[in-house]
Parts: sequence; structure tokens; C-alpha cells
Amino acid sequence: MRRTIDWADDAVVIIDQTALPGEFRLLHLRTVGELVDAIKRLAVRGAPALGAAGALGVALAARTGDDLEADARLIATARPTAVNLAWGVERALAKRREGPEAILEEAKALLDEDEELNKAASKHAAEVVLHECPRRPLRLLSHCNAGRLATVGWGSALGVVWHLHERGLVEEVLVDETRPLLQGARLTAWELAQENVPYRVQPDGAAAAAMANGMVDCVLVGADRIAANGDVANKIGTYGLAIAARHHGIPFVVVAPSSTVDTTLETGAGIAIEERDARELTHHAGTPVTPPDTRVFNPAFDVTPYELVTAVVTEHGRLEP
Amino acid sequence: MRRTIDWADDAVVIIDQTALPGEFRLLHLRTVGELVDAIKRLAVRGAPALGAAGALGVALAARTGDDLEADARLIATARPTAVNLAWGVERALAKRREGPEAILEEAKALLDEDEELNKAASKHAAEVVLHECPRRPLRLLSHCNAGRLATVGWGSALGVVWHLHERGLVEEVLVDETRPLLQGARLTAWELAQENVPYRVQPDGAAAAAMANGMVDCVLVGADRIAANGDVANKIGTYGLAIAARHHGIPFVVVAPSSTVDTTLETGAGIAIEERDARELTHHAGTPVTPPDTRVFNPAFDVTPYELVTAVVTEHGRLEP
Repeated sequence: MRRTIDWADDAVVIIDQTALPGEFRLLHLRTVGELVDAIKRLAVRGAPALGAAGALGVALAARTGDDLEADARLIATARPTAVNLAWGVERALAKRREGPEAILEEAKALLDEDEELNKAASKHAAEVVLHECPRRPLRLLSHCNAGRLATVGWGSALGVVWHLHERGLVEEVLVDETRPLLQGARLTAWELAQENVPYRVQPDGAAAAAMANGMVDCVLVGADRIAANGDVANKIGTYGLAIAARHHGIPFVVVAPSSTVDTTLETGAGIAIEERDARELTHHAGTPVTPPDTRVFNPAFDVTPYELVTAVVTEHGRLEP
Repeated sequence: MRRTIDWADDAVVIIDQTALPGEFRLLHLRTVGELVDAIKRLAVRGAPALGAAGALGVALAARTGDDLEADARLIATARPTAVNLAWGVERALAKRREGPEAILEEAKALLDEDEELNKAASKHAAEVVLHECPRRPLRLLSHCNAGRLATVGWGSALGVVWHLHERGLVEEVLVDETRPLLQGARLTAWELAQENVPYRVQPDGAAAAAMANGMVDCVLVGADRIAANGDVANKIGTYGLAIAARHHGIPFVVVAPSSTVDTTLETGAGIAIEERDARELTHHAGTPVTPPDTRVFNPAFDVTPYELVTAVVTEHGRLEP
């Protein structure tokens, strides 16, 4: 299985997530500018994958750039919410005295670890799900994409689905399409189709109705940043899902590698929330759908207080805030 | 102000809601087939407007068709959830013994009434909002379209906005884009822009975050059918909004003419929920966004239990279930 992000031929090679599911296209990013652009337009996205992008970006900068510190800052701030991005940058940068090859080796090590840590985290989370949800087979609800494509490989929340599907325990995954960029409809659906896991796509607004209809045993999501108290920043819509899950008594499980935990933040109130371009809401496939000059509220993420979360699970098991 | 649906030149004349906001286009529907098609593809939609479509459809059938009863059934069942459609058909059909002109007069009377009843209902609801929400000016959250375009004229939930805006009491309307057909982004935004009411469009998933951010004083929605106990069927996503509003202690007000109340249904559990075409989720502007053969869960409506509703308001004031 090809990695979402990797190093090959002196370049950062990514699966272009803006082209899926229509086209499986690889991009070779050979400069820091190209990498930062790919991060900003979400050709590579997902907190763990951004950690890898941060580390590989520093490796790229060390080989091609003039000012490593400036390039590193540029990469680390390409998007504000996922703490993994700056974490990956810092980790690679710590090897700067040892030269470009050492930086690259560190970045590659981080990639290998990411896959292992997500496998471990999602395995722990699968046990939590089996413990919390008595029904077999399971009907799981997924928001955004927390799969292979959000990580270097395997995935976090969707990683749980892979573990459970291997054991024949998944009846269906309900996939929130996840407006505005449809990472659920485009990416999660694509991953599930590849693995022959039964799924249905729904508008984000249908999730509460699905819960009321008794169609959901557990909600599984990833995270972009987790505060020390367990508050979770994740794709916009996650918070509303958590409120609805609580209202219906449905377990709500967050899965992420521990690099997503930001111990410098006491609570979720300190998490910077990225606001994205109005055009994501005002246009569809290039065509305007709103009146001219329409203003928007378009946060990429929201914060779910830990009180609404059944469990935050990392490679170390259940997080104890 | 042109009516959303009217009778002129021996035809049912509607504003084509599939063309807005890009184009303001009128359609002249001269046969029952054309009308039913317009209803099914949502060129005319909104429960009160469908009541008018039902009555005018019977008038059209009486003038052009061979089998009035069969045509009436065809119209009444074009969409299953809005009770107003069958109600409008029945009301016009009651005049069948008096001939086509009497049917048409009855339909026209229903149109006049719709505008008056929505004005009255939304005026009552404006008082409820002012009573429930202390902050001035008000920040209101709207889902789907319950404006002029959902009725013959004036509107139900957006009618409240018109009343409050006339008095200078509206700071902003947050407009849920309302997937999958974007009636909020396309239609509600268009109506608000026409009236110079400040608004922002947001993805449906951002509503709970907006509430947590303290950006919402009241949620205002219309209804497609209201059961005798006060349970409300409305556009998919309404139920999740109601849960989130309750979680944040934000008033949640439903506004509709009393023709939307179906006293034959004891609770919302009896309301038939229309499931719509997969293509609404699998394609954007004709382009596939999901993998081939993706299945969907695409209900047009959900049911909000009365316990989550602050007030259901009709032209008679607060509904007492």
C-alpha cells in the first residue's frame, strides 16, 4: 500500500488528495514553496500526515534552501490548527547540526513511526469500541477523513474500522460527507471502497437523524489538536456530532497518535482555529451558488470539550487528562 | 414583490428556485405533468408554497385534464412529507361540483390567505423571540429556506426576520447552507441580500460551533409537517440544530401556518420521510465527488421532538399541543 506522503527521488511525494476519488495522482514536491502550497490547498492534509510533511519539509529545506530556520517557520505556520505540523518541523530541525542527511533520516524515522503509532492507537480504540458497544456487527459513524490519507499509512479513526473489519465486525460505516471540502464523501468513501467495507455517505445534517433512527452504534473521529485537559479540535461539525451522540447515549471515540496532544495548552479554548476561504462555500465546482459578495463563517475546525468524549485514545491507550 | 407561485395567463407561474441565485426565471406550467415535475425537482418547494401548488394544480387539472380525481392524487403525492400539499389539493377539490372557475377562485383565495397567515404567524413569532432573547440587536440562525420562496409571499421563519429587521433589531442572520440542495446558501441568502439584511453563510456543521462561540441568540426554522403533539418535521439537519440549541440554552422557534399542522398524526413518528436521489450527494454540479456506486442515506427531512422546541408558532400564536 503506497504511503500518503513519502520521500523518493530527492522529493516529497504525496498522493494529491484534491484529485481523489476521480484520479489517483502523485505529486513530486521539490521545493519548500511547492510543499507549503500543497499544505495550504490541502493536497496533503490530516494532522499526522502534516507531521510527516513538516519533517520532510525541513529535510527538503536543508537540501535545497538557503535559510533553514526561515523555511522551517514557513512550513510550521502553513496551517495553524494541527499541532503535528510544528511538531514534525521541530523534530527534524533538532538534527540541524548533524546536516541534511541526518535530518532526512529523522524525517523518515518519523514516517515509519507514524504508521506504527496509528496502528497501535487504533487497535487500542477498537478494544474501547468493542467494550462500549454491545451490538454486533457494528454500525460506525465517521466524520471527515481520519484514514490512511490523513496519516502516513493505516489511519487513526478509520484505522479502527480496518481492525474491526478484519475481524468481520463491521456492518456499515455511515460517512459524513463533511462540508465544505467533502473529505468524507471523497476520501473516506474512497478508502472504504478500496477495502470493500460497506458504507453510505450522508449529508452532515443527517447524522442526528441517523442516531435517532438507531443506525449508529459508535462515532469515531480523529483529531487535529488535543489540549492537556482532553478537549479535542477536529474538523468542523465534530462538536455538533458529539452533542448529538451524547443526547442519544452513543459512545463518541477520538483516535489520534500522541503527537496530536499539545500539553502546552491547558484547555481547548487556547487552540487557534483556522478560518478558510469564502469560496469554499460560495462556489461549487467553480460555479457561484450564493449571491455576489456573500460573507461566510467558515472555520475549518471546532473544539469538543472532553466532557462529551467517551474516550480519547492514543498509542498509549486511553488518554487520562 | 412578485409571488413565489401565482396564477396568470391560464397557467401556474412559479419562480424557478433551481435557477436562483444565478438567474431569476419564471416558469409557466400549463399541464398537471409540468406542475408535478416542477414539484418533484423542487423548482417550487417549501410547505406553504406546496399548499398553493396543490390548489392551483387542481385548478389546472379542472381546466385541462380528463380525470380530475386521478390528477389530484398525482399532485397530492408528488412529495410525501409536506402535509400542505395534500391539504391544498383537498381544499380546491372540495369545489369540484361548482366547476373549474370555482376551483380556481378557491385556489386564489388560498394564495391570498397564505401570505396573510404567514405574516400573522411570523409577527407572533417575532414577539416570542423578543420575549425569549434579551440581547439587542439579535443574531439569528436560519436553516434551509422558510422565506418568501417557501411560501406564496412574506415567509414563515424568515418572515420573523423581516418583522424584526423593519424595527432595526437584527444584527446578523447566520445562514446554514443546508446540504444537499443548498436552499440556505442559494435561496435564504438571496432573500436576505434583496432586503439588505446582514448575513453570513456557514456549513451546516458549523452551527454548533457558532452557538458555542456566542454568535447565536435564537434559532428560527419553518416546518414541513407538525404532528398533533408538536413534533416538527423539517429539512434534514433541523433535529441536530435543536439538540445543539438545547445544549447551549438557545431558544429554538418553529414558525408555520396552521395548515402545516396535521392533527391526524399523534406524534412525529407517523410522519413519512422522503428519501431523495443519491445523485444529490454523489455529484456536484454534474461532477462525481464520491467513488462509483456509492450508496447514500439522504432523507429530505428529520423529526424534532416537541421537547426540544421552545415554541411552535402559527397565525394563532403559540401552538398548545
